[in-house]
This record gives sequence, C-alpha cells and structure tokens, in this order.
Amino acid sequence: MNNKFFYKKNNIPLSKIFKTLKLDFIGKDRKIYDIKDLASANSHDISFMNSNKYFDLLKKTKAKYVITNTRYKNIVDRYCKPILVKNVLPSVANVTLLFYPKSLDDTFDNNVFTPDQRKYKNIKFGKNVLIGKNVIIGKNTSIGHNTIIESNVEIGDNCEIGNNIVIKYSKIGNNVKILDGSIIGKKGFGFFPDYKKNIRYPHIGIVIIGHNSEIGSNNTIDRGSMSDTKIGENTFIDNQVHIAHNVNVGDNCIITAQVGFAGSSSLGNKVIIGGQAGISGHLKIGNNVHIGGGSGVVKNIPDNSKVMGYPAKDLRKFLKDNK
Amino acid sequence: MNNKFFYKKNNIPLSKIFKTLKLDFIGKDRKIYDIKDLASANSHDISFMNSNKYFDLLKKTKAKYVITNTRYKNIVDRYCKPILVKNVLPSVANVTLLFYPKSLDDTFDNNVFTPDQRKYKNIKFGKNVLIGKNVIIGKNTSIGHNTIIESNVEIGDNCEIGNNIVIKYSKIGNNVKILDGSIIGKKGFGFFPDYKKNIRYPHIGIVIIGHNSEIGSNNTIDRGSMSDTKIGENTFIDNQVHIAHNVNVGDNCIITAQVGFAGSSSLGNKVIIGGQAGISGHLKIGNNVHIGGGSGVVKNIPDNSKVMGYPAKDLRKFLKDNK
Amino acid sequence: MNNKFFYKKNNIPLSKIFKTLKLDFIGKDRKIYDIKDLASANSHDISFMNSNKYFDLLKKTKAKYVITNTRYKNIVDRYCKPILVKNVLPSVANVTLLFYPKSLDDTFDNNVFTPDQRKYKNIKFGKNVLIGKNVIIGKNTSIGHNTIIESNVEIGDNCEIGNNIVIKYSKIGNNVKILDGSIIGKKGFGFFPDYKKNIRYPHIGIVIIGHNSEIGSNNTIDRGSMSDTKIGENTFIDNQVHIAHNVNVGDNCIITAQVGFAGSSSLGNKVIIGGQAGISGHLKIGNNVHIGGGSGVVKNIPDNSKVMGYPAKDLRKFLKDNK
Repeated sequence: MNNKFFYKKNNIPLSKIFKTLKLDFIGKDRKIYDIKDLASANSHDISFMNSNKYFDLLKKTKAKYVITNTRYKNIVDRYCKPILVKNVLPSVANVTLLFYPKSLDDTFDNNVFTPDQRKYKNIKFGKNVLIGKNVIIGKNTSIGHNTIIESNVEIGDNCEIGNNIVIKYSKIGNNVKILDGSIIGKKGFGFFPDYKKNIRYPHIGIVIIGHNSEIGSNNTIDRGSMSDTKIGENTFIDNQVHIAHNVNVGDNCIITAQVGFAGSSSLGNKVIIGGQAGISGHLKIGNNVHIGGGSGVVKNIPDNSKVMGYPAKDLRKFLKDNK
Repeated sequence: MNNKFFYKKNNIPLSKIFKTLKLDFIGKDRKIYDIKDLASANSHDISFMNSNKYFDLLKKTKAKYVITNTRYKNIVDRYCKPILVKNVLPSVANVTLLFYPKSLDDTFDNNVFTPDQRKYKNIKFGKNVLIGKNVIIGKNTSIGHNTIIESNVEIGDNCEIGNNIVIKYSKIGNNVKILDGSIIGKKGFGFFPDYKKNIRYPHIGIVIIGHNSEIGSNNTIDRGSMSDTKIGENTFIDNQVHIAHNVNVGDNCIITAQVGFAGSSSLGNKVIIGGQAGISGHLKIGNNVHIGGGSGVVKNIPDNSKVMGYPAKDLRKFLKDNK
Repeated sequence: MNNKFFYKKNNIPLSKIFKTLKLDFIGKDRKIYDIKDLASANSHDISFMNSNKYFDLLKKTKAKYVITNTRYKNIVDRYCKPILVKNVLPSVANVTLLFYPKSLDDTFDNNVFTPDQRKYKNIKFGKNVLIGKNVIIGKNTSIGHNTIIESNVEIGDNCEIGNNIVIKYSKIGNNVKILDGSIIGKKGFGFFPDYKKNIRYPHIGIVIIGHNSEIGSNNTIDRGSMSDTKIGENTFIDNQVHIAHNVNVGDNCIITAQVGFAGSSSLGNKVIIGGQAGISGHLKIGNNVHIGGGSGVVKNIPDNSKVMGYPAKDLRKFLKDNK
C-alpha cells in the first residue's frame, strides 16, 4: 500500500464512524487514524473480520475496534471491541470511504496542465500531453501524443510511454515501455451488488510496474482495492490484456495477447501465458508455470507445471484427451 | 427505434424504389413514407418478408407493398402486393439506404466544435473535447479529455464520461459512467458478403444506456441495425467488453472483462457473466442467469440457470464432467 | 518486404558484424550489404541457418556467409562460410539491428506536424491530427480527430480513417476503413526471453491492408518482423481483434470481434471466423474455411473445412461430441 498516492483524512471520531454505519454510539469518543486489515492495523486504527480463517490474525491484531457480524461477535469480543454490522464488507467500504474520500472518485482529472518542454529538459513530450498533480517523471523518459498522466503517478527513468494512454495512481519503474491506448490505474470492477444502485469497493491501492517491463497496446490494468496491483520486473505483456485489481504478476513473465485476469490472483516468476487464456480470481499460480493459449485456469497451479484446457489441466493430459 | 437520431427522407416514390431494386415499374406511382418490419409498418410504409415464421405478422400488417422472393410470392399475394427480388435482405438494405442516406456513413464527424465552458455552466469539460450536432448533455455531467461526442447523442444528468471516448447515435441515462477509451454507437458488423465488395446492413438503431449503469474502459458497443442496442439500468460492464448491434442487456446485470456478444441476443435482469465468456447471436438469456467465465453460450438459457463450459451447459454437469 | 519503410545502413564491414557477435575476426575484411533469409539473400548479403528444413535453400543460396551453430557447421561448410554462434536467432536479431538501427525503436514519433488543410485540398482532416515523415495520403481520404499517422505510412484513395487511431509502418489500399481506437504497425510481441532483460526480435516488416477492407474499433495489428503482416482485399475485421506480426490474411475474409492471432499464421481467401476464436502461431488455414466462435485452432486446416472447438475439430464432430 502506498498511501501517499491517496489523500487520507486523519483522526476521524469513532462516533462518526458509528454514525456512518447507522449504529448508536455510546461511551467515550476517541480518534481513529485509519482502517486496515487485522495484520497491519495499529492501535489507533479500526479493522474488520468476516471469516474464521482470520482467527490467528485476530489474536495478534493491535486494532482495538473490529467491524464484524453476529457470527464472529463472541470470538472478536475476546480480543477487541466488536462493532456489529449486518454486512461486513459493504460497511468496511463505507468506512474506508470516510478515510479516503477520493478513493472512488474516478471522474477525469481536471487539474491537469500542458507541460512546458523548457522546464522538463530531460523529458520528451508529444503534442497535447496532459499532466496532473503529484506526478514525478524520471529523466530520459518520453510521453507520447495525447497521453494523460493524471494525478498521483511516479514514472522512472528511460521509460517510453506511448500515445493515447491514460495513467493514474501508478508507480512505474525504470526502462518501462507502455504502448499506445493502454489505460492504467483506474478503479477495479469490484462492488457489492445492490438492487437499484451497486456499492463500489473502495480502491486505495495503486498499480506498480517493475523495471524493464513492457505493457502492450490497448491494455487495461486496474489499481488495487485494499492492496496494490503489481507487475514484476522484465515482464512483457502483449496487446489487449486485462489485469484486474489486486493481481500480482511476478518477474520475467510473458503474457501474450488478450489474456485476462480476474481480481486478486498472483503469478510467480517466469510464468508464460498463451493468448486468450483466462485466470480466475484469488488463485495462486507458481513459478515457471506455462499456461497454454485459450486455457481457463480455475484452480491454483504449483511451480513448474504446464497446463492447458478449459478448465486447465496438466498439458500431457490435455493432449492425450484431445488426441 | 429513435428515428429522430437519423435523418430520414420522406415520401419516396414507389417507382424510385423499384428503380433502386433494378425492377421495372408499371402502374400508378405513389409516395412511400418509410421501410419497416411487418409489425410496425403503416399503410404508407413498405415492408419485407423472407421467412414463414413471419406469416402471422404478414396477416396483420398494414403495409401494402412487401419485398419478398418467389418462395413467398403466393402467400404475400394474399395480403399485400409482393415486390419480387432475388435476395430479400440486401434489397431491404438498399431501400433502407434510400430512406436513411446517412445510416451507413460512419466517417468521422467533422461538424464538431470545442465547447465554450462559459456557455455550459453545469457541465465540466476536459481539454480537447469535441461536440457534434444534435447533442444534449444534462447538468452536472463531466466529459473527459480528448473525448468526442459526435452528432446525435443525448446524455443525462450526473454522468461521468471519461477520456479518449467516442460516442455517436446514443441515448444515455442519468448517473451513467463511461470509462476511458470506449467507443459507443458506431455501426455494427453486419453485412451481406459479396465477392469484391461486401454490402453493409443499414444501421438506423442507436445505443441506449439506462440510468446508473457503468461502461468500463476500452469497450465497444455498436448501435443497432433495424432496432436499438440497449443496456439496462444499474448494469455494470467491465473493461474490453464487446457488445454487437441489437443486443439487449437487462437491468442489474454484471458483465465482467473481455466478454463478447454477437448480434441481436437479449439478456434478462440480474444476469452475471464471468470473464471472457462469449454469447452467440440471436439468443435469449433469461433473468437471474449466471454464466461462468470463459463459457461459450450457443443456445437459449432459461431463467435462474447457472451454466458454464464451451459450449455452455448446466454448471453442475460442467463441474461433474470436469472432475 | 518493403525496405523503403525502414532506414537501412549499407555496407557494414564483416569485421564489425563479427565484433557485434563477440567473435574474433581473422582474414580479409569485406562489406556486407544486408541480412536476409537463405532464399532471398544475394552474394553480398549475410544469411542464417538453424534447422535442417532449410537444407534445400542452403544448397541454392547466394549468400557467402551464414550464421549458424555447431550442429549445422559441417552442412553449412559445404556451401558457404559458417559464422558459428551459440544462439542463432538472437545473433540474427543483433546483426539485423546493425543494418536497421531503427527497427526496434518504437518510441512515439516526435517529428510530426499538424497538417495544413489548405495544402491538402482533397483530404479531410479532423481536429488535432498529427502526421509524421514519409507519409503519403491519397485523394478523398479522411483522417479523424486525434489520429496520429506516424512516419512511414502510405494510405490510398477514398479511405476513411477514424478517430484516436495510431498508424505507423503501414501500406493501406484504396477504399479502406479503419475504425476508432485501432493501433496499427507497432512492433510485434516477439523476443528471446532473457533473464533480466528480454531481447526483442527485429521488426522490419510493415502492415499491408488491401483495397476495400475494413478494420474495426480498438484493434491491434502488429507489423512483421522479417516479413510483412498482410490483410487481403475486401476483408472485414470486427472490433477488438488482435493480429500479431507476420500474419497473412487472405481476401474476402470475415473476422468477427475479439478474435486473436498469434504470429506468422496464414489464412486463405473467404475464411469466416466466429467471435473470440484464437489461432495459434505458424499455422496454415486454407480457403473457404469456417471457424466457429470461441474455437482454439492449434493445427493447420485444409480448404473448405468447417471447424469448431477447443482444440478446434471438424464441426460435425464437435456438434456430435457435445450433443
């Protein structure tokens, strides 16, 4: 998490948080500094629990107040003060929005300016480039025509950013190439379906792209919700690839055209993925994995595996089954 | 159909229609007002018939003149005056083009202007925005950088239209978000293959997007040919989705990244579609249907079904077959 | 190959080529004119051999010097002078880069200008159009808003180039339509994976699009590496299609939305491909072939076949297997 990329309110009264959750507040008020998961919360932060698998984290958390539901009330009660809500995650979303009021505002950035080439002697700008606030661009980097670097972006040295690109909430290493038409850093497609008006997850993660990597044309890489979306070093991504929020791609990976990732999956290093393959959400793909073109990956894949098919299975089995 | 979006010629002589179809015209000339399907045609319109399944409509049609071929000549003769051609649909395309001479002209719109922010006090424009003729934009709506609202577009209140977007021939509700790089309202990919030079369907439908919906980045949504392409209310569409002409998506649907629709299919309400799934043309998908990621849907799906696979089948069967 | 599109150095000393390959050079130096495959090399060119299947070409080649490895040393020795390297193709890439120093430089083109409409009386330009060096545009052609025709592009007569398009290194016929948001002519996704820093193939091919063809919205068509990427005449391509380097599509083909091609495959004439189908690399698809939507084609397909499935098989078999 790179919170310097998002404006955060500090010291929100606990009573205000209760009010946001439509709960009555009784007792002595206190200031809350942030909302974080159980592992990273400090004593002045609020946290949340909605599954038994977080029990070990609960035991060690520094958070005093934990948003939860009646199912986990007793267990949370042993370690912290439970804040009881009906739906944990939408409540977390609402509280996160209190601390990060801009985390869901993806309206186009109107605080942009046309950079003055004389002021940026080591940067090559195309025509009609627009730059927002809180943007840092390294030396010998080029930014192509009509490209918009919205606010809260760091770009390293010797990068080549192409034409017609939109980037926001991203941290890009050195020697990175981003090709024409890609859209990087918008909020992910995560929300709580709600009749009449869906409720969006907060998105306070950014997109991090490692050194020497390449992002192809017309790609979409969404920023993370509560953690970051990461692309490793020397990882090459072809055209029309979609990478959803919180996905974590390792180093030296090769991802060919039209591949798609649902949210929150992680890839090891040296993973090769053939064209049009799809990776479901919340999966763990190991190192040195080869995924054949067109595959649909729906479960974890251990290191050094070769898989293909829909659903993806061992490559030898796929070839045998389709002989 | 929203014909106010398309310039229509009125009162075309029947003799001119015959000439367009390379037919000899004998008898008393008369003015024809429009070309419509059998159900919606009025007494001054021309219509067409190319399948027995339209027999019931033929019996009730108000149209006097019906384009058809020798196969349906006798049956049409009972109710209307048949106009005999070799290929019905290309002939319909040619006659439609007579009435709607701009229905296939998708050349970029050069009658655009840069909006004067002082004249649009309640609208937030980015840099390099271009607006065409016959465009209405509601209050508190924002239009991002480099976005082109070509002619014949209505946008509601409180909408967020992002950067690098092109919209034409569309009607967009209130509180709609359209994300960067999407292209909405171009003519669909329908044509009559013809050696040397394919003949395009006419496209006099528009794109209609309901209130509170969201269209992701780098999407393509084509306008309808003889009817409209519709997205319902509170329907959320992820990135890199393709929606072909005449598709009808219901309310409260969730369509994840890289899904594709061939033309003329309809979706009920509360349909959820996983990433990269494909929906063939002319299908009817019911309400509350869940379609797994990567599926290829090739037949109708009744209400409340869960399907997955290529071709898509009952989810339990898919899971069992792939255990 | 259309080398007038790429700047080529002439007469590079053989000793410099050896130095580039980190080999000791002994003997009399000589000038080398170009690097070409065995079939097209002339006596002053250098060539390469890395497979027995090129044996017949080796016997007839005019090249005197051939880059190869120890495996083919003896066979090459019979006809030419072998230049022994460890990895043939990366060495070829390095030597190609010597002759074509700009073949991998895909930084955005900063030598562009805004065309003066008065000077191009027969061409219709939108707003913010940018044109690079070595660009020829035919009469009655229109170029949409924000479109960038980078250097080394020839466009024929009566073409309609839409908005937000980027084209480089391409040769486009007459009556061609290219729709909004497409990116044509960037270098392909071919490289030699290398720990820390992948090595890119040279890309000295262009994109050639035949007369009367149409390229949909948000497509990506990469230029060729050692040969050209070709789209035939009267071939229609829908939205969000990806065509990789060296692909060769015939005449009168219909390629629907979200189809993807890996590199170097060839399609005959009158091929129809359904939505989201994928074609693996280095395949030969015959004439009059129909490929069903969602198919994954992994082997050659003879003329007049209908296939569907993943992997694609005879359509009747697919339908029977999935009854």
